[in-house]
Amino acid sequence: MRELSVIGIGAGDPDQVTMQAVKAMRRAEAFFVIGKGAEKRELVEVRTAILAEYVEGPHRIIEITDPPRDRTPEDYTGVVQDWHERRAELLEAAFEQVDGVGAILVWGDPALYDSTLRMIEHVLARGRVDFDYTVIPGVTSIAALAARHRVVLHRIGEPVHVTTGRKLREQGLGTGSTVVMLDGDTSFTEVPGDDIHIWWGAYLGMPDETLIAGNLREVEHEIVTRRAQLRANKGWIMDVYLLRAF
Amino acid sequence: MRELSVIGIGAGDPDQVTMQAVKAMRRAEAFFVIGKGAEKRELVEVRTAILAEYVEGPHRIIEITDPPRDRTPEDYTGVVQDWHERRAELLEAAFEQVDGVGAILVWGDPALYDSTLRMIEHVLARGRVDFDYTVIPGVTSIAALAARHRVVLHRIGEPVHVTTGRKLREQGLGTGSTVVMLDGDTSFTEVPGDDIHIWWGAYLGMPDETLIAGNLREVEHEIVTRRAQLRANKGWIMDVYLLRAF
Ligand SMILES: C[S@@+](CC[C@H](N)C(=O)[O-])C[C@H]1O[C@@H](n2cnc3c(N)ncnc32)[C@H](O)[C@@H]1O
Ligand SMILES: C[S@@+](CC[C@H](N)C(=O)[O-])C[C@H]1O[C@@H](n2cnc3c(N)ncnc32)[C@H](O)[C@@H]1O
Repeated sequence: MRELSVIGIGAGDPDQVTMQAVKAMRRAEAFFVIGKGAEKRELVEVRTAILAEYVEGPHRIIEITDPPRDRTPEDYTGVVQDWHERRAELLEAAFEQVDGVGAILVWGDPALYDSTLRMIEHVLARGRVDFDYTVIPGVTSIAALAARHRVVLHRIGEPVHVTTGRKLREQGLGTGSTVVMLDGDTSFTEVPGDDIHIWWGAYLGMPDETLIAGNLREVEHEIVTRRAQLRANKGWIMDVYLLRAF
Repeated sequence: MRELSVIGIGAGDPDQVTMQAVKAMRRAEAFFVIGKGAEKRELVEVRTAILAEYVEGPHRIIEITDPPRDRTPEDYTGVVQDWHERRAELLEAAFEQVDGVGAILVWGDPALYDSTLRMIEHVLARGRVDFDYTVIPGVTSIAALAARHRVVLHRIGEPVHVTTGRKLREQGLGTGSTVVMLDGDTSFTEVPGDDIHIWWGAYLGMPDETLIAGNLREVEHEIVTRRAQLRANKGWIMDVYLLRAF
């Protein structure tokens, strides 16, 4: 029976990899690396750095180029599902080349806004390749953000709402604290109120890491400007933030 | 200047420790271990196992016994704050014994329902000891739960609400998925509806790890019974769960 490990590798700093992840990587013969195309080369490089540092000996890297995807569709769910189907086909083809243990390195934690597990269920449901799989949890970009700001996510006894830029605009803040991921549109500028604090971080754990925190109304302009500059310089950006009323 | 590292160590499996955490531990001269009293001996043992396996050479362990705390008070916030103050005093006293780098090993991730960072801010605000500190993120029990069930936390594009048993009873489910921590009262039995799935886990990553998943109405009784048995056998329990409408 073929085996697959789905391994969370942390959200940017190669040293965020766990011992459990390192042990699982050492058992794998082949690594499926799902790349996002040239502009996110750096994300692939974090994975390569981890393998170079912690996995001695020969190993095969099978790079899978992520199929392109319409990022502003009308039918968001439909487009994402279709995109998952195309990724599943690519993984299936790659997996047929491997006999023993394969591994997929996943950014952050595999359970948080990542589609790898759904893709694997697709591959299994298609029934062309069969395998058993294990998931290894990882440090999320949320934990990385909080650590760099030395802030606690929750207020004592209160909830933490984790959402996307899109849902923040539709639904507003949660009760307690709100963490926003996958926000391409600086949606924090649309959150009303003069009593909100923001802790923002981009490229966490990576060489261009940038942190800004403060009263939302006082720092929002700085974040918008800085974000636009960083994005223009590198061609891509990844950022996450925590919002909470004082 | 004294230095303190606040190190997330993962939520139960000693191998969930990150390389970043291991490197920080190797720099520390003394470890402050905050114990919960005899009944949670096992939680202290995970920390000792990590130190024994990954930190060679002599190191001092300064054990701090957590002050007792009223778990069902009327004035919840007040009692928790008072408890933090007493913990701060204990840490301050322990810290005065160390000259170089000290470390505190924190269960899971330091930013998630943990009071260590608030305690450290108390200690600094009191002004009797001065130090710089760094936070090292860790794998949360949420990531551990999802990994063992091989489930994704979010539904495509939807939020994830992280809450406590108490707040679940007061506020109900969030939109999207809901993760419940710190629930001493099997509050899932009070969530109405026939279309809810639950993924439950106790002692994740530890020898007594127990997982149950299914339709909430079909498995809730089994979880309540099993939880009571486990708790009676060991004297304590730690559990976390994910709820989501089908
Ligand atoms: C597709 S999700 C993957 C999340 C990942 N599984 C995790 O556990 O963090 C990508 C989003 O995560 C956040 N993110 C991931 N890594 C980040 C980093 N190093 N710095 C800032 N944000 C990051 C951003 O909000 C980004 O839009
Ligand atoms: C004080 S909070 C600490 C959370 C921790 N900082 C984290 O990142 O997971 C304790 C709660 O976390 C959850 N928890 C922590 N470790 C767990 C484990 N190994 N198994 C099940 N639940 C756990 C339980 O809900 C427990 O009530």
